[in-house]
Order: sequence, then C-alpha cells, then structure tokens
Amino acid sequence: MAKIKIGILGSTGSVGQRYVNMLRDHPWFEVVALSASEASVGKKYRDAAKWVLDKEMPEEMAEMRIVKAIPHAIKAAGAEVVFSALPSEVARRTELEMAEEGLFVVADTSAHRMDPDVPLLIPEVNFEHLAAIEAQRKKRSGFIVTGPNCTTIGLAMTLKPIQTEFGLRRVLVSTMQALSGAGFFGVPSMAILDNLIPYIKNEEEKVASELLKILGSFRDGCFENASIKIGASCHRVCVLDGHTEAVFLETEKATSPDEVAKCMSDFSSEPQRLRLPSAPDHPIIVRNEPDRPQPRLDRLSGTPERAKGMATVVGRIRKESALDNGIKYVLLSHNTIRGAAGNAILIAECLKGKGII
Amino acid sequence: MAKIKIGILGSTGSVGQRYVNMLRDHPWFEVVALSASEASVGKKYRDAAKWVLDKEMPEEMAEMRIVKAIPHAIKAAGAEVVFSALPSEVARRTELEMAEEGLFVVADTSAHRMDPDVPLLIPEVNFEHLAAIEAQRKKRSGFIVTGPNCTTIGLAMTLKPIQTEFGLRRVLVSTMQALSGAGFFGVPSMAILDNLIPYIKNEEEKVASELLKILGSFRDGCFENASIKIGASCHRVCVLDGHTEAVFLETEKATSPDEVAKCMSDFSSEPQRLRLPSAPDHPIIVRNEPDRPQPRLDRLSGTPERAKGMATVVGRIRKESALDNGIKYVLLSHNTIRGAAGNAILIAECLKGKGII
Amino acid sequence: MAKIKIGILGSTGSVGQRYVNMLRDHPWFEVVALSASEASVGKKYRDAAKWVLDKEMPEEMAEMRIVKAIPHAIKAAGAEVVFSALPSEVARRTELEMAEEGLFVVADTSAHRMDPDVPLLIPEVNFEHLAAIEAQRKKRSGFIVTGPNCTTIGLAMTLKPIQTEFGLRRVLVSTMQALSGAGFFGVPSMAILDNLIPYIKNEEEKVASELLKILGSFRDGCFENASIKIGASCHRVCVLDGHTEAVFLETEKATSPDEVAKCMSDFSSEPQRLRLPSAPDHPIIVRNEPDRPQPRLDRLSGTPERAKGMATVVGRIRKESALDNGIKYVLLSHNTIRGAAGNAILIAECLKGKGII
Amino acid sequence: MAKIKIGILGSTGSVGQRYVNMLRDHPWFEVVALSASEASVGKKYRDAAKWVLDKEMPEEMAEMRIVKAIPHAIKAAGAEVVFSALPSEVARRTELEMAEEGLFVVADTSAHRMDPDVPLLIPEVNFEHLAAIEAQRKKRSGFIVTGPNCTTIGLAMTLKPIQTEFGLRRVLVSTMQALSGAGFFGVPSMAILDNLIPYIKNEEEKVASELLKILGSFRDGCFENASIKIGASCHRVCVLDGHTEAVFLETEKATSPDEVAKCMSDFSSEPQRLRLPSAPDHPIIVRNEPDRPQPRLDRLSGTPERAKGMATVVGRIRKESALDNGIKYVLLSHNTIRGAAGNAILIAECLKGKGII
Repeated sequence: MAKIKIGILGSTGSVGQRYVNMLRDHPWFEVVALSASEASVGKKYRDAAKWVLDKEMPEEMAEMRIVKAIPHAIKAAGAEVVFSALPSEVARRTELEMAEEGLFVVADTSAHRMDPDVPLLIPEVNFEHLAAIEAQRKKRSGFIVTGPNCTTIGLAMTLKPIQTEFGLRRVLVSTMQALSGAGFFGVPSMAILDNLIPYIKNEEEKVASELLKILGSFRDGCFENASIKIGASCHRVCVLDGHTEAVFLETEKATSPDEVAKCMSDFSSEPQRLRLPSAPDHPIIVRNEPDRPQPRLDRLSGTPERAKGMATVVGRIRKESALDNGIKYVLLSHNTIRGAAGNAILIAECLKGKGII
Repeated sequence: MAKIKIGILGSTGSVGQRYVNMLRDHPWFEVVALSASEASVGKKYRDAAKWVLDKEMPEEMAEMRIVKAIPHAIKAAGAEVVFSALPSEVARRTELEMAEEGLFVVADTSAHRMDPDVPLLIPEVNFEHLAAIEAQRKKRSGFIVTGPNCTTIGLAMTLKPIQTEFGLRRVLVSTMQALSGAGFFGVPSMAILDNLIPYIKNEEEKVASELLKILGSFRDGCFENASIKIGASCHRVCVLDGHTEAVFLETEKATSPDEVAKCMSDFSSEPQRLRLPSAPDHPIIVRNEPDRPQPRLDRLSGTPERAKGMATVVGRIRKESALDNGIKYVLLSHNTIRGAAGNAILIAECLKGKGII
Repeated sequence: MAKIKIGILGSTGSVGQRYVNMLRDHPWFEVVALSASEASVGKKYRDAAKWVLDKEMPEEMAEMRIVKAIPHAIKAAGAEVVFSALPSEVARRTELEMAEEGLFVVADTSAHRMDPDVPLLIPEVNFEHLAAIEAQRKKRSGFIVTGPNCTTIGLAMTLKPIQTEFGLRRVLVSTMQALSGAGFFGVPSMAILDNLIPYIKNEEEKVASELLKILGSFRDGCFENASIKIGASCHRVCVLDGHTEAVFLETEKATSPDEVAKCMSDFSSEPQRLRLPSAPDHPIIVRNEPDRPQPRLDRLSGTPERAKGMATVVGRIRKESALDNGIKYVLLSHNTIRGAAGNAILIAECLKGKGII
Repeated sequence: MAKIKIGILGSTGSVGQRYVNMLRDHPWFEVVALSASEASVGKKYRDAAKWVLDKEMPEEMAEMRIVKAIPHAIKAAGAEVVFSALPSEVARRTELEMAEEGLFVVADTSAHRMDPDVPLLIPEVNFEHLAAIEAQRKKRSGFIVTGPNCTTIGLAMTLKPIQTEFGLRRVLVSTMQALSGAGFFGVPSMAILDNLIPYIKNEEEKVASELLKILGSFRDGCFENASIKIGASCHRVCVLDGHTEAVFLETEKATSPDEVAKCMSDFSSEPQRLRLPSAPDHPIIVRNEPDRPQPRLDRLSGTPERAKGMATVVGRIRKESALDNGIKYVLLSHNTIRGAAGNAILIAECLKGKGII
C-alpha cells in the first residue's frame, strides 16, 4: 500500500515538532511537506526549527526544505492531507484556503472548532460526526476536521461511556494542567517553581463549549449540543506533561462506582474496531490503587507501543454524596500526545480507515 | 502584664518546631516547657530537635531542657496552657490527661476534634463555640479546644460570610495541597518532582465532617451540624507551602460575584474586634487579578507583620452556571501557619481576650 | 539630612524592578526618576511595568510617571545619581551620555566593566579602586562605577581575605546558578524541571576577566590585573535565587581549613567601618554544619535586616590534596541582591560615605 | 543456550527493584531467586516489595516467593550468580558467605570494593582486573566482583581513554547528583525543592579511592593504585536521574579539546568486542552543542535499545588555562542504570562472555 502523503503547517513550532516526531516511521503516512513562516522558507528543517523535544529530530525530516504555507506549495510537494499547527492569527484563513484548494485538513488549532459544518473529533467519542464532512464538500473540494483542546479530550473520553450508560446531567471539573500545554516557552520557571497558577486564559470556556458539541449529536446536517451543565476551574501546576482532572458529576440514572469503572474499562469504539495504528487497545484504563493516576507514572500508559500516551487513565472512582446521583473520579490524559498531535493523527487514520481519504 | 506560661507537647517534631518558631517574642505568651518522647527527656532542645525550618531555631529555646509529656512535669515548669503537636497515637490520651489535671489544652491534632463537648475552632468563624468549654469544665478542671485540619480552615473561613449573607446549600472543593502538609519527611522528592499525587489519606472525609461542625451551631449544650452538602477531592502538588483550593458552591439566595467579593472583603470577626496579636486585619483578602492567588506570591499575605500567613487569599470569584445559584472561586491558605500552629495560637489569644484564661 | 535623589534607568525590566523594590524606604536615597523605553514614557510606573517580584510594587513609585532615558529628563527630575539596569544594546552609549552630562552612574550592566578608567567594584573587596574616578573626571563632569557579574561577586568576596593572608596562585570554580540570574523570562520551565543546563553564555569568560581586575590593583592611574590562574565551569540549576559555587584553590603560603575559616569570619572592610546602611555586619558568614550553605536556607542571611542577602555564606572549608597548598569550599551568594541591585546600592552608599557624592 | 540462573539479594529495596526491572526478558539471564529480610520470606514479591519504579513490576517476578538471604536457599532455587543489593550493614558478611558456598557474587554495594583480591569493575575500563578472581578462588569456591559508586563510573569511563592516550596527572571534579542516588525515600521534597544540598556523605572519599583502584593496575596478584591526584566536591541537585559532573584535569602530554573528543568518541573496549547484550555501541558519546549534556535529555542515550542509559555522555570539552596541560568538560552518567544495576549486569555478561561463568 502506498503511504498517504502528508504536509505539516507550522512545522517548526513546538506543536509542529510533535507532529514531525510522531510521524516518523508511521505505517500509513509519509511526510512530504513541512511549511513555516516566510523567514524559514527554503531552509533545511534542521536549521529552521529550534528543536525542543527530548527525543532527537528524525534524520529523514532534518534534511527536508521548508515550503510556503500556501496550497500550491503544499500540493506541489505531493501532500493530500495536512496537519495544521499554525499560530492562531493565521490558522483560520490558511486552513480554509487549504480546504478550498482540495486538501484534507486536520487541525488541532482552535480556529474552526466551533464552525457549524466542521467536526470537532475524538475518534472514540464522536466518529459519527464525520458525517459533517459531506456538508462541507458541497462548498469546497477539500474539508476541515478539528481536534479539541487538550483539556477537553480526556474529559470527553471518560464522560462518553457514562453518558451512554447512565445519562449525564451535570459535570464540574477542576484541572491540574501540565506546563507543556502552554508551549515550550509558555511558562517561565520563575513563575511556576514552588508555585501554581490558578488560571489559563479562555480554557474554562473552551472546555464547556467543546464538550457540548462533542457529546452532542449531528443530525439532519446540523450539530446539536448535548444538554449537560458543565463548569470548569483550570489551573497550571509544575508537571512537564499530563493533564490531571478532578471530575464531579451527576448522572441521570443512579449508578455506582463499580458500574462506572466497568463501563469505562469496557469502553471501546470505532478506532479499536478498525484497528487503527495509533488507537490504544483500551481508550480508558481504570486503575484501582488509591493514589493513581499520577502524571509521571501514568502519562505514557497504553498499548500497543505506538499508542502510549493515547489512553486516558482513570482512578479514584467514588460516590459523591454532595450531588444527586453523584460520582467523582480523577483522570489523566497526556496533553501533547492524545491532547494534540496524537489525536489529530488518529483522526487522519480514522479518515483512512473509513475510506474517506 | 505577666505573660501566660506555655507548654508545647511534641515540641521536637516538625509541627512542634513551628510552635517554637512562632512563639518567639510573642507579646502575651512565654514558652516554659518543651516536651518530647522519653528518649529526648533531659536533653537540650538544640540537641533533641532535628530542626527543619528555614528560619533558625530561637536561641532562648535552644537551651531549654526537654521534659516529660505528663501533666506533673508540665505544671512543674509553670505552664498553664499547652499546645499539642503530639503524634496521633498518643494525642488522644495525653491531651485528656492534661485537661483532667487542670491544664488548658489547645490542639491541632485530630484526636478530639469531633468530641461532643470540644470546640473545633477557627476564631473568626465560630468563636461562639467556645461556650462548649463550660460543659467540659463540669467534667474536668481543665479543657480542650481543637483547631481543624489545614485544608478545612481556609475553606471554612471563606464559606462563613457567604453562609451568613446568602445561605449555603452545596459545596464542592478540589484541592492542590502543599508538601509541608505531609510533614518534612512526608513526601519523597522522587515521588513528587514532575508529578502530583491525587490522594491524601482521610483528607476528604475530614474536610466534610469538620466543615459541618464548624459551620453548625452550638445550642443547648450540643453541637448541631450545618445542613450543607459537602464533597471534596484532595490532591498533593509540588509546592512547599500554601494549600490552594478550587471551590464550587450553591447559595440559598441568588447572588453575584461582586456581592460575594464584597461580603468576603468586609468580613471581620471577634479576633479583629479584640485586636488579638496574631489576628490579621482582614481574615479574607480578595484579589482582582485574573491569575491570583498563587501560593509562592500570596501565602505570606496579611497585616500586621505577625499576621502574615494568617489571612485567606481569594481570587477568581465568578458565576458557576452549572449549579443553581452557582459561584466558584479559588482560595489560598498557608497550611502550616493559619492551617496549624498559627490558628492554635490565635485560639489561645482568643481564650485570653475573652477572659477564659 | 536631605536624601540623595536617584534615577533608575531601565526601571521596568526585572533588574530595574529590583532597584525599585530595594530602594523603598532607603534611609539615604530617594527615587525621583524612573526611565524606560519610548513606548512607556508618560505612563504610570504601575501600568508600564509588568511586575514580577514576589513582594508587591511600592505604592509611592507605582504612581510615578516614566521619563525618557536621556540626561536632560533625568536631571529635570532632580536626580544626581542614576542606577543603570539598561539592556546591553543601549547601556554603553546611554551610561556614557549620563556621565558626560554630570550624572553619577552606578551600573551593574556589563558595558563599561572592563574600561580602563572605570572601577569594577565590590565595596568590601576593592573600595580603593574608587580612585579611578579622578581619572574619569578629567574627561567628563560625571563618572561611571560598575558592579561585577552576579557569579563573580561571592567568589571575589571569599577570595579577598585568602589573597591578603596567604596569597592566591590558582582558582577553579564550578557553579550551580539560580534561575533568576537569567531574568524572569530567561529559563522556560520546560527547559529546567528535572534537569540542569551546563552552560551559561559568556559566564566563564566574565568570571575570569572580572576577578583579575577586582583582585588586582589600581596604581599610577592604571588597573593592573592580579596574577592568579582562574578557571570556571558554569551551570544553571533549578533554584529560584542564590548562586552556589564549589571552589578549589591553591594558596601561596600553606594554610589550613581552620585558618581559612578564621580569615573569612574575621573579614571586615570599608563598608563595615563606614556603617553603610546596606552593609552586612559580616561580609562572609562561615557555617560549620557539613551540609551548608543551601540556597533556600541561607540566601537571605545577614544582619542587620536591610542587609539580608548581602552576605556571602561559606561552608565545607576543607583541604584539597589534589592541589599544592590546596583548599576547597562551597559558597552561596544571593545573585539578585548582593549579585546585582544590592551591590550597586552599596556602591552608591560607599560613594556617599566617602564623601565622593 | 540455557539461561544462567540468577538470584537477587535485597530484591525488595529500591536498588533491588532496579535489578528486577532490568532483568526482565534478559537474553542470557533468568531470575530464579529473590531474597529479602526475614519479615518478607515466603511472601509473593508483589506483596513484599513496595514498588517505586515508574515502569510496572514485571508480571513473571510478581508471583515469585521471597527466599532467605542464605546460600542454601539461593542455591536450592537453582541460582549460580547473585546480584547483591543488600543494605550495607549485612552486605559484607552475606556476600562473603555466598562466595564461600560457591556462588558468583556481583555486588554494587560498597562492602568489598576495596578488598585486595576483589575487582572493582567497569567492564570497559578495567576488565583485565578480572584476573583477581583467580586469587580469590584459591580461598573460596565462589568469588566476588564489585561495581563502583554511581559517581565514580561516568568519571572513570571518560578518564580511561585520556589516561591511555595522554597520561593523567591531576583530576578535580564537581558533581551535580540526582535524587535517585539517595534511594527513593532518601531526599525529602521539602529538603530539595528550590534548593540544592552541597554534601553527600562519604562520596568525595569514595570517588577518590575507587578511581585510583580502577585506573590502577593488577599485577603479580596485587592491585596497584594509579598515581593521579584526585579531588572532588559532591552536591545533590533537584534532578530525578542522571549525575552531571564538571571535570577539570591535567594531562601528562599536552593535548587539545579536539584530540580529547576524538579519543573519547573512538573509545571501545572488551564489552563492545564481545558484543555483550547490555554494552552500548559507544561507551562515551560526545556531543557538540554548547549546552549539552543535560540530564533529562541525555540520560537515556545509547544504542542498542537495551543499552540506553549505559553510555556516558560528554560535552563542552575545552581548554582549561588555569591548569598546565589543562582540559575541562562536563559528563553525564545515568546513576541508577550505568551507575548501579546496569553496570553489575554488564559485569555478569562480561564474566559469561569471557567464559568465567
């Protein structure tokens, strides 16, 4: 099988680097175009990117020359699918241009997440939202699919089986988010050592609005929000990778911690059925120790090897007597793998697996 | 005015050291007895205590000789009031013996917190619970007053004015607690660096049961719990001092973030009226910046100088639409000052200010 | 006594903020002019500076309006002495302009440190280098005095009494430097958590060249370098404030750890004789515990209160058998107090104390 | 080929756990006996060990029953080779007993390191010291081989090729050591966050004495120390794994940084020639970036996969003008892999590879 040819928009930034890193040796995809801002065009990737990841830059991409972030250049390099890691100020326009020129855009930027014809996708949670692509294709030759904010993903993943089994009325979440969520240069060490920052701009709003779309339905050509009450309080803590979230919720039907644990452990979905290469065997891993999940110990959970960091790890599932039909638990999701590039790659695999690309 | 003579039970441990540290140069109190376990009796405090605080050991106490933790020895040294920082396995029995022999015991151990005739006191919140002392004195010549868990204190402090003004139906809290709460040797660096631990043994239960007693009433010789629904999720983060708590709540009467901020800023109580030496001018400090309170920046807030770390700092007061009459905010309370020795010292000052001792 | 009127150049940056912070309530000095770049001119300091220090901005300066960094504006505000915290690209020219227009410039920028007529001053170590001011004043109506790099100061302080007593042949130093040395935004948390960076640009060169000037002499109108061999290896570690340095050295005359400890403890100099307000009672504090100095515990050492962070703390003085007449020890110096603004303020106090201003 | 049967002494401690972890799926070795203190005998390993490593306990060992740390029990389980991770108070006697009863003991405890007939081995550096085993076997049926302290290993590895090519006169080393070197519970978080500790008990002495033995010769049945002057200053920093060391040295023959880099990069030895499974392709990896090695980025360097953490990474090789024929560089060595269990396993592989076992 010939590999699908990939372009990466915004490839030199810290998010772009994660795509480059995760697409090395991908069984289905082959990177053929790396774009960046004007100043870098024509340079080798090795020289254009100030590499910040712990793992070394893949040799095969180090030698590639940066191209312009315009459809013509991306297509000239042979790419059909583009992953967008563009800065927000240019993402909206550029992603649209790409789709209009026939490219298939998978973005984990926020620009088009709430568009009425764009799926906001977590493949295990709402793959059926891919139906919205048809609506898009009436307007343009390509299309856009987006992935949610890193904080939304683990939460939506764990809420989905509960919603299906017991119904959901109300969700409150308090997050303890990792430093990498703000980008490599986002949080100065002087700001966070022996400290935490109880604020992440726009994050609480995003979590609520994105969840409602993801857990809602796509019917008759329209997205309809779920009718769940959602509230969030978001905080940055001194952890490199892995967002931890304390979740309090009310179900429609009464349930128990054991039942919730079971429905999470049993949860499996389209990516697992399609055996997508980056799909974890179990999208949710439930741990029974009293003091887990912990970011450093659990953020790279998941099998197979390629899927490490793609599973959401849950622990401390217990009754919450302060709410009616109340349940609480703690979840951990790797923010730069499942919460960003990894989810986007799984989206692309899903598009392929379902024959859309 | 002659100073009141003080004994410290369990003076060599890390909590005991904080009493020693905070009572240096106290205007009303003078430490005359330091007790510790058998092995230390007779030694100089300098040699008996492995000092772990950043500030140096006070010279005047360094030379004192350790006495036994028995009423006779404490009284022989001239003490009337004892602060207890005893390990939990001996606290219950020893504190009771002290009270039975006529000593006034102020404890921030958990042993007697839930006793039906023992006040669980935050002087600004429920000083009227001191009335329970009378019931105790029918049984014994001395008495016991306790202070709450470090996590409860800041939360109760901020809930009190809301309860008074608007009524409280439901409270959910997610904590991010400091390392010092587990004692100097409590959390290995290997366990917490680049990590957090989403579990603190028995903490969630304590927060709920203690809050109900503190926010309840003392009437006709009995404590009656408040009728509020309370749920907690407790987590340890990599911060030296200062517990941060994300609070979600429902009031009885509808209110607004501005009204809540005002009732917190205006809150003032008996310790302020009595001008107790360790009382902060404002028990609650409300900050308006979007990203405060932060532990390293705000944990030592408070005036006057002696009251630094005695105020609770609140920020991010906002509407919570996922709850009826919903409000959410973030609070910070210094766990080893207001959350432990500082609160106990303020209790003792309150006993003195009200003429009980 | 009327206070001396002070201007601060580059007052809104993180170094400038430290001047603003340390000059609140100074007994001899009064800040009358705060300058910053064009964009801030005319704004209140409160609005122009993104305040990053833990202690709050002093109210009296918060309301001051930013002026231009030109001699005319500074003098119009009444300033006689300016502290320079200018960015390096403009420091050289601007500091010279100020001096040429009659202002007395105290800089801890590196621009003029190695100039042949500019003292590079640590008041306790080489106050006699102030004689170079005379040479300057033949050329211009004002003058420039500079303070050394933060890494040089603690090292020079501890070497001085050894040089005087025993002579110095060779010094090797390996540093463990604090994050604040790189500025508030200098080191991303992602770069340093669970890590260290064994490189600080140009630092090793500065340490060597500055030490030779400071420990050298000023004779017949010229600086002459000390003849000591100096080598450094500089590393950044995850500590907020306080540079720790492991020093290995060879003396001319044989000596012992006890003799070295004694000459350091006994060391006292012009700032102590003149009782300058920011001078520590003891410029070097020698600790005997095996595991000190430690940055968090010792960086704020020093008496009186104003001088906290102005003393260099030394420990672990021991024989080094791998060198002839070898001695090794560990020192700690607060890089943003003694290593920057604090040293500059002490220089200004010294100028006043000796009647130069 | 049948696998060699292995016992682990002290298997439940944090060092023992690392053996258990590293021996899962070893191509040549099979663990058949896990011993621990009396209280654990008979329990499953799963229940006896409080597992502290990030990677999960290997399933196959979790079910093994703990046996006594006596030769009879170890031999009854079929073990021929034992790895010792015994606590120091029992290591000396127990390791000797094992050897006297015919077992082949590989220890990274310090008990027998300096014995006159026991090799202190880093297989790449002094494999020829294995000749001392013959002397031992005249006295006992088994033998003991030891590995050095974690701080010594990386240093000896990098000094060896320099010693061979240019001769070594003098070495000064300043270390920045990781937390794991003190054991999981060794350094409280309260002691090290925003701090460093400039002292590690007995470490400086060990580095010097061990280096002299390792870099010395074994001739005519005796070890003879190298004649090099060695001095160390050892410090603990807030890093999970990976000891960084700043090295200053004097060679006999003049050399240059480039020549030193070349002789390190070219260094290869017996484990590489024998293609031992845990041997890194290159024992020393030289990096050219100005700011490397860094512990978090470089501690797991090495190929093949099994050898990650077995290589020493060197950077910043430069001239040191303060010494005659002076060179300085920074090295990084993984203290719990190459510095402990990994080196011991490589020793055992070397014994097998050379036909000794």
